[in-house]
Amino acid sequence: MQVPVGISNRHIHLSDREVTILFGDDYELTPFKPLSQPGQYAAEEVVTVRGPKGSIEKVRVLGPTRRQTQLEISRTDCFTLGVKPPVRDSGDLQGSESIEIIGPKGSVTIEEGVIIAQRHIHMHTKDAENYGLEDKDRVYVRTGGDRSIIFENVLIRVGDTFSLEFHVDTDEGNAASLKNGQLVEIVSIHILR
Amino acid sequence: MQVPVGISNRHIHLSDREVTILFGDDYELTPFKPLSQPGQYAAEEVVTVRGPKGSIEKVRVLGPTRRQTQLEISRTDCFTLGVKPPVRDSGDLQGSESIEIIGPKGSVTIEEGVIIAQRHIHMHTKDAENYGLEDKDRVYVRTGGDRSIIFENVLIRVGDTFSLEFHVDTDEGNAASLKNGQLVEIVSIHILR
Repeated sequence: MQVPVGISNRHIHLSDREVTILFGDDYELTPFKPLSQPGQYAAEEVVTVRGPKGSIEKVRVLGPTRRQTQLEISRTDCFTLGVKPPVRDSGDLQGSESIEIIGPKGSVTIEEGVIIAQRHIHMHTKDAENYGLEDKDRVYVRTGGDRSIIFENVLIRVGDTFSLEFHVDTDEGNAASLKNGQLVEIVSIHILR
Repeated sequence: MQVPVGISNRHIHLSDREVTILFGDDYELTPFKPLSQPGQYAAEEVVTVRGPKGSIEKVRVLGPTRRQTQLEISRTDCFTLGVKPPVRDSGDLQGSESIEIIGPKGSVTIEEGVIIAQRHIHMHTKDAENYGLEDKDRVYVRTGGDRSIIFENVLIRVGDTFSLEFHVDTDEGNAASLKNGQLVEIVSIHILR
């Protein structure tokens, strides 16, 4: 049960409303590079995000636009910005952290939408059948190597458009010395005290 | 078998020779704050380190001086500097990475001495007896919480002057959302495929 790794750097999904505020009326995102999940792309556009303690420039915008703006950052970034977002699954934004977003044509403060993304595995419906897994299951993932880590509580997300990938952020990737595309393993473990 | 966490930010141990080059003849480090391991301290002094891709300022010097200069950085720092140090135990520096170090009175390039520190547990001889562990044993450490991680290959270091602490770097601490002083657990696990 091997799964390729995808390490997500900090990025932002924008709503149509925020695209207009940050980039101007009738502005449309420009696809720059397709992502591994079908239909998703890195856009040419970047923004600056500013928290109470500091700013981070050149945060990549991912497209297409979404219903609600969502900024995904690492815990390392949180110390730079001075914010304390919760660890959440994508789209679960109620009561999450606030941030100021600055674009070339304007800026906006979102009251919620900043999260640390909970690590997860995207999996096509057929992969899930093969593995005997279901949407929202939780599994252990073992990375191997001299800094091997077993990640607990890894969420399984099943969909007909999903391609098999274990998504972690840069803190998680660096802690285990992971590389994009490296294969890791879904394992069962028994913990004894 | 609970152990308090100590998260190490990037830091440098200097030899007498490099203290002289960086800070001047007959210079002595000024203790600023004692560390948890007896006799060790954070010094008031900081240095800049420069790699092929970038620099990091205000890297804390730890005292007392050592026989060989040793810079411990995270993998996140490696990308900033453009260096590729090995993951090593403290003091195991042969063939490790090179770096330029810049102080107020001079600069020096060390041919080796840059490492990513292998996570480890410091343990007093009596703790080791209580736990049935020996120097150089390897254990699993489970952090708990919603980003719970089981770290594999955690080195046990036993000494009569060591105080009980699980040392990780900032990447490892952030990946598991750890805080200094938080208790984590040494566990036994069986891995099933």
